[in-house]
Amino acid sequence: MKPFSSLVNKIFSNKLVISQSNSCRCFASTRIQASATRVIVNDAPTTASNPPLSFPCLDKLEQKNKQLSSGELKPRSMVHNNIDRLETGPEPNYGFVTTGFKRYHSKKPIFLDYGGHLKEYTIAYETWGQLNRDKSNLVLVHTGLSASSHAKSQPHNTKPGWWENFIGQGKFIDTDKFFVVCTNVLGGCYGSTGPSSFDPANNERYATRFPILSISDMVRAQRELVKDEFQVEKIHASVGASMGGMQSLAYGWEFPDEVDKLISISGCARSHPYSIALRHTQRQVLMSDPNWNRGFYYDKIPPHVGMKLAREIATVTYRSGPEWEYRFGRFRADESRPPALCPDFLVETYLDHAGEKFCLEYDANSWLYVSKAMDLFDLGEKSRSEAQQNRLQSERRYSGIGKNGNDFSEFEVVPKKPYEEKSKPPKNYTVEESLQDLKKGMRKMANKDVLVIGVESDILFPVWQQREIANVLLENPDNKTGKIEYFELGTDISNYGHDTFLLSLEDIGKPVKRFLESQ
Amino acid sequence: MKPFSSLVNKIFSNKLVISQSNSCRCFASTRIQASATRVIVNDAPTTASNPPLSFPCLDKLEQKNKQLSSGELKPRSMVHNNIDRLETGPEPNYGFVTTGFKRYHSKKPIFLDYGGHLKEYTIAYETWGQLNRDKSNLVLVHTGLSASSHAKSQPHNTKPGWWENFIGQGKFIDTDKFFVVCTNVLGGCYGSTGPSSFDPANNERYATRFPILSISDMVRAQRELVKDEFQVEKIHASVGASMGGMQSLAYGWEFPDEVDKLISISGCARSHPYSIALRHTQRQVLMSDPNWNRGFYYDKIPPHVGMKLAREIATVTYRSGPEWEYRFGRFRADESRPPALCPDFLVETYLDHAGEKFCLEYDANSWLYVSKAMDLFDLGEKSRSEAQQNRLQSERRYSGIGKNGNDFSEFEVVPKKPYEEKSKPPKNYTVEESLQDLKKGMRKMANKDVLVIGVESDILFPVWQQREIANVLLENPDNKTGKIEYFELGTDISNYGHDTFLLSLEDIGKPVKRFLESQ
Repeated sequence: MKPFSSLVNKIFSNKLVISQSNSCRCFASTRIQASATRVIVNDAPTTASNPPLSFPCLDKLEQKNKQLSSGELKPRSMVHNNIDRLETGPEPNYGFVTTGFKRYHSKKPIFLDYGGHLKEYTIAYETWGQLNRDKSNLVLVHTGLSASSHAKSQPHNTKPGWWENFIGQGKFIDTDKFFVVCTNVLGGCYGSTGPSSFDPANNERYATRFPILSISDMVRAQRELVKDEFQVEKIHASVGASMGGMQSLAYGWEFPDEVDKLISISGCARSHPYSIALRHTQRQVLMSDPNWNRGFYYDKIPPHVGMKLAREIATVTYRSGPEWEYRFGRFRADESRPPALCPDFLVETYLDHAGEKFCLEYDANSWLYVSKAMDLFDLGEKSRSEAQQNRLQSERRYSGIGKNGNDFSEFEVVPKKPYEEKSKPPKNYTVEESLQDLKKGMRKMANKDVLVIGVESDILFPVWQQREIANVLLENPDNKTGKIEYFELGTDISNYGHDTFLLSLEDIGKPVKRFLESQ
Repeated sequence: MKPFSSLVNKIFSNKLVISQSNSCRCFASTRIQASATRVIVNDAPTTASNPPLSFPCLDKLEQKNKQLSSGELKPRSMVHNNIDRLETGPEPNYGFVTTGFKRYHSKKPIFLDYGGHLKEYTIAYETWGQLNRDKSNLVLVHTGLSASSHAKSQPHNTKPGWWENFIGQGKFIDTDKFFVVCTNVLGGCYGSTGPSSFDPANNERYATRFPILSISDMVRAQRELVKDEFQVEKIHASVGASMGGMQSLAYGWEFPDEVDKLISISGCARSHPYSIALRHTQRQVLMSDPNWNRGFYYDKIPPHVGMKLAREIATVTYRSGPEWEYRFGRFRADESRPPALCPDFLVETYLDHAGEKFCLEYDANSWLYVSKAMDLFDLGEKSRSEAQQNRLQSERRYSGIGKNGNDFSEFEVVPKKPYEEKSKPPKNYTVEESLQDLKKGMRKMANKDVLVIGVESDILFPVWQQREIANVLLENPDNKTGKIEYFELGTDISNYGHDTFLLSLEDIGKPVKRFLESQ
């Protein structure tokens, strides 16, 4: 047994480090916990009424900081293969990948919906199945926020993808019939150009000099891939769930003559303030991590704590209460232990683990930009026509660039009046007017076949958002030939909430397959 | 106009400080934003493709840190009167107070549900109306997580309280008929003993040496006040919403013979894993603020960033999507400004403001302990009998304390086996068994008149939790004389979500008044 003095040395500030030596653990844990710090140091008899709480979760974060500082731990690429995954419960494979994809590189600039531009860009993509002779069977699969192009295993990356059992021979998206393409979105961090990429203009990482992106910007880049790489003039279908469900509609909006069918699962036609609020909290938490350093962390310790917390909040919005009732109940991780402020209930350790898995996998800046693009998504007339104006301005500005570098003087980054918090919309605002604007905007999508699927237990993209898509399309006065189908999965079918598309494959897949394969 | 070199001096790291001088603002904002940092410093012609984003929200936090460091800004007491409130929209008055309450001080120790104890403790309280001769008209009003005893204005504090128009002469809780008492909970920070209080055992602030609390601990302290201060043997009613709805039931559970009527609004009989998850994210965010310093921040900069973020997340759970659709829509705070990662949409500036208002008002440790007490709330048999055992052990331990200080050796703070994440409950767990445990536990509440009110748009305490309370009470085989009433406010009546009890006073108040005043 270690002498008492050696235990005293392990006490600093308000943290207790319990010796890992088995022989003295019992002694250490009872004796050290029994006294407040100063008592031992001062050797005074007055002790606190109760023992101090311990914080294993903070010890762990500090440990991680040390490992990141020393290089023992590295973001993404290194950690990728080391992290154990939750092996129980219905955990989807979110498909983190760093290899095995192809790259499409565009030397042409892309002008963006909010006035920025990328001089050149790369889109990482993977394919399954064969493009047919008349090039009419391309199905573009769009990802959610954090997923990569790795929707399914393929020879260059045999790990299961995030829709492994959804795509394949004879499966819901049948690779015997379709040539399936999935990309990593512009702004992402799995091979496509994003904030962690180098800006060809100055050879530095973009970081938060990356321009604000939109969902339409993402699909415009995908369209270049489709045309340039595969010489496809019209794709068979644009399919996606969550943010992918936004992209699938955006593709139809931007290029109505270049796509036959649209499938939007658990998506929306415009982001709702409640969803914006949920993503807002994630972004603010991440940006408040001092290691985020306003986006310039690439040669430092990354904001792993902020990312972990952001992912935990996101995970709460991806699922539903009833699922967790059945899965975790009110059980605590260790019933032999008194309650703690660190993760304690089973559901807390699950969230902690979900955050932990993710925090070094995904680039923090990519998360922010892609999350923001989701907030900005709006197929309404006003939003889309402003975006068009912005792109034109961006192009004009770009054309005007001489040898002396860029001129941003027209680019009003700073508001006309100083930044100010407001709490009410313009006086003339009504929900009805806003709906009319959406209806006007979506008239462009007339005569497209569209399948919309919603899930009742989804909190992040509630079903009334999918009903809205379907209703607006159905009431489109210009629609003559487009078939609009709407499916809703009730709580009797799925309690998986927003993640249903990753988990209830059969329920989502059947209508998708029928719709894709119908004439 | 300032010379170019003076602007260069204002650029450091990746932050841009724009001169506040009106004469050069326009120049500064366009020129500085137009170039990436190094470019100017190196005087090289290569510039980034796009201007860097600005982060006014982070500038503000840094500014606040400085003000807190210099003492220009102080937590709670000083800030209390300086913060402007949201003056538009249906914002409840959460009733932050620091004065005007009375104090009940118990010299007797209180032994707690999870094994800790307080040698002495204080309960801050306020009263309205008169105690009648036979002392039969006391109505105990319980608060939610962050509210104080200041439910209503009174001569010693004339500011409006959080239930200002609910309590009063002729109002829903009628002070012509009832003697109304509201306390600040044990663990809180508005005058009652909590983590920011001084431990009489060592004259230091408890901080995270404060023992883990339960909702029942809170009501046991309240009962001492009722008996000791007012010599009331049986109260007329125990009334509360949210955490107060937990307390109102807990009072009935702990002292079934000392209360006539129970009213639980937007409460539950046990916390659900989804609610635990929502509070978990708030606690983890707060604890991850380096300024939290494991709870020992009282002589330092308080964790105002973590508190702000925690409150923002909480605020999202207090409301509903439809309310925000009507209130904020998709409007941005400043349409003249390009999209930003800092608060941008109106709903974001609202959340930002809500967090800002709160972050120096409420004690961070109180938030953690009271939030945790909510998670632990469970009127099931297993939880309640374990708590009883723990209190007995705590008392025994306390009695054994000699002159040599406390002995915590029996107090197993450290788990028997090392801390480990788990993702599944014990194999034999079923939701039905868990419900049986609750039914068993709540048999004690037979023959009480109970009014339960739920709100359909509530995300944090969903209606099925209130239905559960009512159903379990209705199916109680021991219940012979107790009247169980259940009211549910649909989305056609209120879209205010969990906060409905603070906002739709009429809808909540009518059944409350009738129930309180019925024979």
